[in-house]
Amino acid sequence: MAVVDDQSPVKFASRLKDGRALAEDVWSIYNVANLPPDCINLGQGYMNFAPPEWVKKAAEEALGTVAANHYSHPKGRMRLRQAIKKVYDPQLRRDLDVEREILVTSGANEGQYSVFTAFLEQGDEVIMFEPFFDQYLASVTFNGGVPIYVPLHPPANASGKFSSDEWKINPEELRAAITPRTKMIIVNTPHNPVGKVFTRAELEMIAALAKEFNLLVMADEVYDTLVFDGKEHVRIATLPGMWDRTVTVGSAGKSFAATGWRVGWLIGPEYIIRPTLAASTRIVFCSNSPLQEAAAAGLEQVQERRFFETQTAQYAERRDILTGCFDMLGLPYTNPEGSYFILLDISRVKFPDDYPFPQSVLGRGRDFRACWFIAIEIGVSSIPVSEFYCIEHANIGEVYARFSFCKDVDTLRQASERLKKLKQYIV
Amino acid sequence: MAVVDDQSPVKFASRLKDGRALAEDVWSIYNVANLPPDCINLGQGYMNFAPPEWVKKAAEEALGTVAANHYSHPKGRMRLRQAIKKVYDPQLRRDLDVEREILVTSGANEGQYSVFTAFLEQGDEVIMFEPFFDQYLASVTFNGGVPIYVPLHPPANASGKFSSDEWKINPEELRAAITPRTKMIIVNTPHNPVGKVFTRAELEMIAALAKEFNLLVMADEVYDTLVFDGKEHVRIATLPGMWDRTVTVGSAGKSFAATGWRVGWLIGPEYIIRPTLAASTRIVFCSNSPLQEAAAAGLEQVQERRFFETQTAQYAERRDILTGCFDMLGLPYTNPEGSYFILLDISRVKFPDDYPFPQSVLGRGRDFRACWFIAIEIGVSSIPVSEFYCIEHANIGEVYARFSFCKDVDTLRQASERLKKLKQYIV
Repeated sequence: MAVVDDQSPVKFASRLKDGRALAEDVWSIYNVANLPPDCINLGQGYMNFAPPEWVKKAAEEALGTVAANHYSHPKGRMRLRQAIKKVYDPQLRRDLDVEREILVTSGANEGQYSVFTAFLEQGDEVIMFEPFFDQYLASVTFNGGVPIYVPLHPPANASGKFSSDEWKINPEELRAAITPRTKMIIVNTPHNPVGKVFTRAELEMIAALAKEFNLLVMADEVYDTLVFDGKEHVRIATLPGMWDRTVTVGSAGKSFAATGWRVGWLIGPEYIIRPTLAASTRIVFCSNSPLQEAAAAGLEQVQERRFFETQTAQYAERRDILTGCFDMLGLPYTNPEGSYFILLDISRVKFPDDYPFPQSVLGRGRDFRACWFIAIEIGVSSIPVSEFYCIEHANIGEVYARFSFCKDVDTLRQASERLKKLKQYIV
Repeated sequence: MAVVDDQSPVKFASRLKDGRALAEDVWSIYNVANLPPDCINLGQGYMNFAPPEWVKKAAEEALGTVAANHYSHPKGRMRLRQAIKKVYDPQLRRDLDVEREILVTSGANEGQYSVFTAFLEQGDEVIMFEPFFDQYLASVTFNGGVPIYVPLHPPANASGKFSSDEWKINPEELRAAITPRTKMIIVNTPHNPVGKVFTRAELEMIAALAKEFNLLVMADEVYDTLVFDGKEHVRIATLPGMWDRTVTVGSAGKSFAATGWRVGWLIGPEYIIRPTLAASTRIVFCSNSPLQEAAAAGLEQVQERRFFETQTAQYAERRDILTGCFDMLGLPYTNPEGSYFILLDISRVKFPDDYPFPQSVLGRGRDFRACWFIAIEIGVSSIPVSEFYCIEHANIGEVYARFSFCKDVDTLRQASERLKKLKQYIV
């Protein structure tokens, strides 16, 4: 970028110099366009199957109207806000006010960005657990915030399969990270990329600190419909005293296999939703209307169709195909309780130092090269996990590659067959 | 909001205290929900007709695929970028690079917001002509910028119909507004709400200053397909030396009567597009996929279908229904050369001071009360133009009400019949 900028008549803003805003991001490097055509893509977290027909049908019906092709209210379409209320009221044990406590956003991503715009002053600190969803970093810094990292620690000396629950926060590290400038803490559960579903005790510990230090909590729960093995998914907003300081984030894309619809939502008290609405109204004005109607139809019908229960069982089957392969390889890996990601320890996967790596993966963590090597030689792409750590702590992440199992069973079986050939590179 | 904030455990950011971010916006006040059910809505600028069937068909086809329900590249879908290139190459007289010079955004609004995020430092000044599209103000201030206002002057002593071309910039006022902190100038042509299509000479004058003072130009041309009476629409990016410092903004919503699809685009040199892509990628990640496919199909076919020519003729007919009515009333008004707005001088419309106005329109400009009175008594809603001025200059705008003619002919005829009854209130 430096070259481009040096030739530019007008300079870009210094906020883009923070973090990795202008570096080639990991999604572009491991994009299908850069990999062999027959490489199986378990890198990016989008499905290779379509949203349910009965949800898509509502989008088609919306396209057939006049109103649902035009602006929606910046708060979101009333039908969708009502449908969100229907699903969340029992889970949050509240009678949600659709005018003041629910905000539809252009994907969960834009919703979270709007919360940062609405609440961060220059220099305000936002605590996030590492590894973290990479969008958080720039979303915070672009709004003048300072990310503060608290690690999730994997178990020492794991030798094979271990539960995502074994990734732990050290409460003392969390407390020590809080300063007078701390404004917010992001709690991503189920967690991307670890797959951890935070326990009630862990959330109570975080909640106690949030109350003690008057922090806002962003509960990024976009994988809330994907929790396996009967694990309890606790919403931190339901803990005593936490509704008043928590904004809960949801996603139609994750819930209905429609990542390209860009429909998400925020739920919280009026004092959080109203400033966030003011921000979102200026950032995007409103979200696309036809796919809000589809998301509404989806949420309206999930209970009678038992859709999330069925979908979770399907994802559990998908997960188990990959974990079966990793068991065979004998490499340590995280068995996720939620989300659709598996972290595979690739530190014992050996590759030649003089392998013809592209420039884009050189000078990054070892995992960038390992993931590239696996993609080319094995034919399965994954994402290097150092991308989910701050630059200073990237070395912790470079032990892992992230594999997504939001793919159909046939694809995952084929990927497993290929991944078994990793055996020859394991030392 | 003050009350809410006082009760809030966590304070919202001070950037929301700038401008009118938390005030009830004009779109909410004059929303159909607040007005009598039979009131004809000529306030908000969205159509009461649907996008063309052949464009919607592409959205339905996209919903039937797997890929077009999932994430698009943050740059936008290749098909749409190619279609934008097809339409804009001849107009900009360039061979646009779809990888580096075109960026699809979640509506033109999000695209513009991303430019501000990518280029504004704290305290950078952005010049905008008053009246201005109200979203600019907060989009600039939220990103640390300072709006600087340069008025468009209406003709003195207009008595009836006058062309939007008679709204003029004073070149000396523009030059005087430039300081060492000026970073950007917004040129909205065709102009909302004036309807002015800037002449080549006017744009040359602006371009000369942009070059002299090294300014970025945001050419907001979202109404570029709606220019009437054979008026030449000049793109400032085509003037000598201007490509390198201009980002041109376009909108599928305005072009295809689909304001709720949230698909827009930016075109400019790599050094503008690349930082803006970095901003947009963090703000929304990507734009919704199915409606990008639809917008692509639209742009691919406009030439062979002569769609924009036909649509312009339809809008000209719609405009002339309203102007015929305003001629009959004998009030001064702007005959727009572009966009779908007419500014009616309502200073001679008399209403009782003790009329039962809602709290939301009291304490604002006289036009807020006039528009409310007309909506209730005449049954046609419009938007008070003081909203398009900074608070300090709101008095200039309160002479006008903005009527949108992006409605079907029957609606506009019915509105005209009602508006003729304004006669009794004219003094």
